[in-house]
Amino acid sequence: MAVTISRENVFFAFGSQLKAAARIEQGEEILLQTHDCFEGQIQTTSDLVDALDWGHVNPATGPLYITGTRPGDILRIDILEIQIGQQSSMVTIPGEGALGDVITQMETAILKLDGNQLVFKDKVRITTHPMIGVIGVAPAAGEVPTGTPGAHGGNMDCTLIAAGNRVYFTVGVEGAMFGAGDLHAAMGDGEIVVCGAETPGAVRFRADVVELPGLPTPFVETKDLVATIFSAPTIDEAAQGAIHNMADFLTRFADIGLNDAGMLMSLVGQLKFCQVVDPLKTVRFEFPKAVLAEYDFRIV
Amino acid sequence: MAVTISRENVFFAFGSQLKAAARIEQGEEILLQTHDCFEGQIQTTSDLVDALDWGHVNPATGPLYITGTRPGDILRIDILEIQIGQQSSMVTIPGEGALGDVITQMETAILKLDGNQLVFKDKVRITTHPMIGVIGVAPAAGEVPTGTPGAHGGNMDCTLIAAGNRVYFTVGVEGAMFGAGDLHAAMGDGEIVVCGAETPGAVRFRADVVELPGLPTPFVETKDLVATIFSAPTIDEAAQGAIHNMADFLTRFADIGLNDAGMLMSLVGQLKFCQVVDPLKTVRFEFPKAVLAEYDFRIV
Repeated sequence: MAVTISRENVFFAFGSQLKAAARIEQGEEILLQTHDCFEGQIQTTSDLVDALDWGHVNPATGPLYITGTRPGDILRIDILEIQIGQQSSMVTIPGEGALGDVITQMETAILKLDGNQLVFKDKVRITTHPMIGVIGVAPAAGEVPTGTPGAHGGNMDCTLIAAGNRVYFTVGVEGAMFGAGDLHAAMGDGEIVVCGAETPGAVRFRADVVELPGLPTPFVETKDLVATIFSAPTIDEAAQGAIHNMADFLTRFADIGLNDAGMLMSLVGQLKFCQVVDPLKTVRFEFPKAVLAEYDFRIV
Repeated sequence: MAVTISRENVFFAFGSQLKAAARIEQGEEILLQTHDCFEGQIQTTSDLVDALDWGHVNPATGPLYITGTRPGDILRIDILEIQIGQQSSMVTIPGEGALGDVITQMETAILKLDGNQLVFKDKVRITTHPMIGVIGVAPAAGEVPTGTPGAHGGNMDCTLIAAGNRVYFTVGVEGAMFGAGDLHAAMGDGEIVVCGAETPGAVRFRADVVELPGLPTPFVETKDLVATIFSAPTIDEAAQGAIHNMADFLTRFADIGLNDAGMLMSLVGQLKFCQVVDPLKTVRFEFPKAVLAEYDFRIV
């Protein structure tokens, strides 16, 4: 039976100064309830973004003090399950997002859940693939708004951050001060209009410190691949960061020579977009575990 | 029986001033033989890039004058088959590519073909997915080196440009002056060290003018999706171009309202990297045909 953390425990910046909502133990199952990215302010197609209280956008649930975590530790989050709500919302916001220069009309769409599909305007049925938009730990210094991604995690909007996968962070402060929110029932890479199918829900997870000192984080592991994630002011810089972090991982952890690492990254690695619409842009680099196995490396 | 165009017909810039290697008819099957991107200069691991004659890098085969094509026409290339060689090569070049700042040793790797797999250093087996690196038409004015991508096509290094798929170009000059080359037996999105598995080979294709005036090109169609492709000095600009071209396509061709187009692009569209290492960077935006069908649109 998982320990439940209620979605009333909202916070709006990852930082060391916040009071923990709760203390949790490593290895214990936690059910973290989350608001949608609008903290429930959008329920019908009449709820337009001009009526939003922007002080209540992008809430994360937490922060959680994880016992026995210290700065520099690598924290592994095993995402066991993502529960989503019976409806999701999407909005258009003139001036915002990758089409903000041409979109002139505010609009809200409500997508009802029907089995494992979302229904868009009674026309298009989309199979859900629930993911976590905001997830991270407090940075070593300062505060980062929950709407911004960075080295600490945050609003990365990475479609790999889904049930069955693992996310790794570098602990910045004692207790880690972990939190998550901003679930999407579905989203495409890029997040063109600054939202996926925004939904309230809950994340069932376990947190553990693992012996991977110096792992370039944020880092994701799925059944088939590992991925570095990097956020920066431009996509060009984010791509450079994700690529260099993967080369660093392959050479230092998997003990693959730099030339082999580079050629294999060119051959079977995939540079991918997470999002291009937040205050920093986020890119990931994916590399197949099957190739790591040929070099006798397994992450755990 | 396809008309064969020999790989001796090399050219190094897409431009209107070139003499056509041959005239071909719309609808006829053509087998275009191609050199690898080094014009065969690299055959063994002893052939390093410092001995390359760079005047013979990135050859395309052609150009082909396609009868009945005029400026502004939309030219559809049906890629029927891609044949690859018995070995492919990869190189590392200090100072070049996305890891050029850390790679210090020149190296050449030769990957033998074994069935439908490439063998990298007797260690890693990679299933081939042959694709065309360089493909395009002459621009309306001026010349573009075959190593550079652009609105005319060229060195886009897009993994979707593969057998069974279609590529669309806007004809720039009478006769189109089409050409292709730079086949890869396999490549990951990003093309980190500026090469995939570089191979000689041949492309069997058909060219036809189609009635899609104003289509934002280059444009790709596969069994399941359509994609816009855009190249620009920075990835940020290339992403903006690919996104806006897709919004333009969805609104003008598929008659989807701009807000619906934007929300669906955010929900089920995928912004993807082609390459980040050529003189211009190339990004594509993929959108599922199944959603177009719900709006009663089919491209042909």
